[in-house]
Amino acid sequence: MDLDTIAAISTPMGEGAIAIVRLSGEESIPIANRIFKGKQLTEVPSHTIHYGHIIDPKTEKVVEEVMVTVLKAPKTFTRENIIEINCHGGLVSVNRVLQLILESGARLAEPGEFTKRAFLNGRIDLSQAEAVIDLIRAKTDRAMNVALGQMEGRLSRLIQKLRQELLETLAHVEVNIDYPEYDDVEEMTHSLLIEKSRKVHLEIGKLLQTSQQGKILREGLSTVIIGRPNVGKSSLLNSLVHENKAIVTDIPGTTRDVIEEFVNVRGVPLRLLDTAGIRETEDIVERIGVEKSRQVLKEADLILLVLNFNDELTIEDEQLFSAVSGMNTIIIINKTDLPSKINMDRVKELAADSPLITTSLLNDVGIDQLEEAISSLFFAGSIEAQDMTYVSNTRHIALLTQANITIQDAIQGIESGMPIDLVQIDLTRTWELLGEILGDAVHESLIDQLFSQFCLGK
Amino acid sequence: MDLDTIAAISTPMGEGAIAIVRLSGEESIPIANRIFKGKQLTEVPSHTIHYGHIIDPKTEKVVEEVMVTVLKAPKTFTRENIIEINCHGGLVSVNRVLQLILESGARLAEPGEFTKRAFLNGRIDLSQAEAVIDLIRAKTDRAMNVALGQMEGRLSRLIQKLRQELLETLAHVEVNIDYPEYDDVEEMTHSLLIEKSRKVHLEIGKLLQTSQQGKILREGLSTVIIGRPNVGKSSLLNSLVHENKAIVTDIPGTTRDVIEEFVNVRGVPLRLLDTAGIRETEDIVERIGVEKSRQVLKEADLILLVLNFNDELTIEDEQLFSAVSGMNTIIIINKTDLPSKINMDRVKELAADSPLITTSLLNDVGIDQLEEAISSLFFAGSIEAQDMTYVSNTRHIALLTQANITIQDAIQGIESGMPIDLVQIDLTRTWELLGEILGDAVHESLIDQLFSQFCLGK
Repeated sequence: MDLDTIAAISTPMGEGAIAIVRLSGEESIPIANRIFKGKQLTEVPSHTIHYGHIIDPKTEKVVEEVMVTVLKAPKTFTRENIIEINCHGGLVSVNRVLQLILESGARLAEPGEFTKRAFLNGRIDLSQAEAVIDLIRAKTDRAMNVALGQMEGRLSRLIQKLRQELLETLAHVEVNIDYPEYDDVEEMTHSLLIEKSRKVHLEIGKLLQTSQQGKILREGLSTVIIGRPNVGKSSLLNSLVHENKAIVTDIPGTTRDVIEEFVNVRGVPLRLLDTAGIRETEDIVERIGVEKSRQVLKEADLILLVLNFNDELTIEDEQLFSAVSGMNTIIIINKTDLPSKINMDRVKELAADSPLITTSLLNDVGIDQLEEAISSLFFAGSIEAQDMTYVSNTRHIALLTQANITIQDAIQGIESGMPIDLVQIDLTRTWELLGEILGDAVHESLIDQLFSQFCLGK
Repeated sequence: MDLDTIAAISTPMGEGAIAIVRLSGEESIPIANRIFKGKQLTEVPSHTIHYGHIIDPKTEKVVEEVMVTVLKAPKTFTRENIIEINCHGGLVSVNRVLQLILESGARLAEPGEFTKRAFLNGRIDLSQAEAVIDLIRAKTDRAMNVALGQMEGRLSRLIQKLRQELLETLAHVEVNIDYPEYDDVEEMTHSLLIEKSRKVHLEIGKLLQTSQQGKILREGLSTVIIGRPNVGKSSLLNSLVHENKAIVTDIPGTTRDVIEEFVNVRGVPLRLLDTAGIRETEDIVERIGVEKSRQVLKEADLILLVLNFNDELTIEDEQLFSAVSGMNTIIIINKTDLPSKINMDRVKELAADSPLITTSLLNDVGIDQLEEAISSLFFAGSIEAQDMTYVSNTRHIALLTQANITIQDAIQGIESGMPIDLVQIDLTRTWELLGEILGDAVHESLIDQLFSQFCLGK
């Protein structure tokens, strides 16, 4: 494919030790060479790095002291010639270097355009490209593992296998349609058709089963802490935040607004909704009647309902129970260091199937059990299965759900003796839907939209 | 020098395309090799880059897809073996890679420790190391050029030359003291002593003359906009911000709190103080009597006093003039699109020597002239002298100021016929003070303190 040469700053903006200007395209090496003083970059071997200076060709003045990496196609991220210019981390100087690169013939890359080229040039498929952005945004080790597995093509290989099965099945169907005179082939095709289709259906079903967990790992578990004033909601929040050292917030320089809410509980990213509200006010009970609060509750994946061990159950407590009925709720009975006044039998009755945890947050008692409960509520029995392929991307889930319907239609059709060419349509549609996950025959506008979510320089 | 192996994340924290974990030290290559799956890094040539994966050695699981650069001593930034691991830009994965590196035998680097090693290993002197941080923090091209010149040793070479002169002079003095019987040598030494000392004095003076401008380029010009309500202070602020495309603020992802205030006016970084106050309220005149506002004015390097062309001068205007008397002030008479009501003669009288600019900010008229006035107020006649060596660092300025005094003492001593061994003390002290700029015989605690200002991973 013949594409122009693109360039962008590929490191996050901010004061740092190293900033990188990256180029990709046929002309990368000569363009960089025009403003580089050091070795002739056009003559050095691939995969080597060279010390030198970036020079403004108009004034002959030194703009930066750099290390330039030369990577020649096809063994590169984009399968094109790549140049990486490692600058000292200043905003002004790295911008100056980028500007000179643009003046020397490169075009500013769009967000995600490097990864898009890796896709367009066939180095990775669409699901792998999507995993690159998931990897960047991963909030926990487990989310990272899911993204990494997908990036390495684990999901792609599964999908490809299913498509292959479908293709072979369709070939049989073709034979059946084109050569109806071969009676023996028809018989074989029919039973094979059922068998193959059921197998594909089963595999799609398995993948869809991982999607809830996959989505949680990818996007985090929306969590709301509710309870009457003074039951220990803030303590619970602080315990969850402080017990979990791996929390992304602790890294200096991250954008607090975006990341602060994430707490890593045994690999499950908890996104604490309305956290600020809880911190600042204790009036969530009063607000529970308000429509907006109910809305927050409805959108939550997990409710942590906190009760006071040292107090009798009140009408408000009972109201909270009914507000969260039918939702994923964990009941936390706090302040077990104080004498028991709560009617535990009634609590158990109200809790029904929801897990019950007793804590004394003041003394750090019970947090382990709570984390265990959170983890097993969403990942029961599957924690050890770390090599599992999770479907985590909403686009993939939607396509798999559609494919699940079309393959079911196909199976029903076969079973009810529907004409084979109608079954063929459903099978072909299933094959196409699975292909869209890999980026096969995907609309260009969708591709543009997908890659625009990337950061600049990726 | 024998130092342990250090490691840190060398790119700014945040979502980005590339994140780098950097190692420096004797053991860098074997440590990285322990968790790298790909080529044997211990066997590859220096200055090469290699594709592969980072593996958790305990679980054998893939943690990241990376490119690893191998740089062998002594041709590296620190003069030690350096490894750079380029990861996909995720916070979690780059932290995981760093963690594995630390578990494999490296120690977490302190802020600035890589640059400190470059200094300790003799690759750069202290003023060059200090320029590295200035380069990272540079707000404009000109500030960047100053830092770059210093980093390349322009200041160091000047200082070294002066020290060399002093050393030769001191050698002559030694001869004079040790061999007083050589009458002819004494005569020559005396005139030479005066000549050499005056030359050093002249050069130190020249450097000190650049310090005001150097400091402005490095730290920005504290600027306050004052004026009565409705004269156009907000318009002025907006014009300055919008006219200057190179403003650092416009880069997404930068820490707004810190950088937003900087406006690049023809290479002069303007730090707009109390900007928020001006934006939100128009009551600076009311607050002018308050001690705190006066304090802000006193700390400002530049005052922009805005008047209304379409209104008569008021008592408040006159009060503003007296509040800023003796300060670097530019008078801006705004709203020239409206009929003149202001008494220009009185304005000129009040302005005295301060530049007067007429503007119609509404129509973008006069901003050019204002920028010209700002630039020439601080860089009169020196804008073309781009190759000038500026002294910009407060530590350097302080040392040069001291050296200026000791060399003056020496000259006075020689002229008044003071015993030569007393003059010798002043000359030696001058030589030492200049040496401190380069990091010669500087206290270890000072070095630690200087490098602690750096960002992590530099």
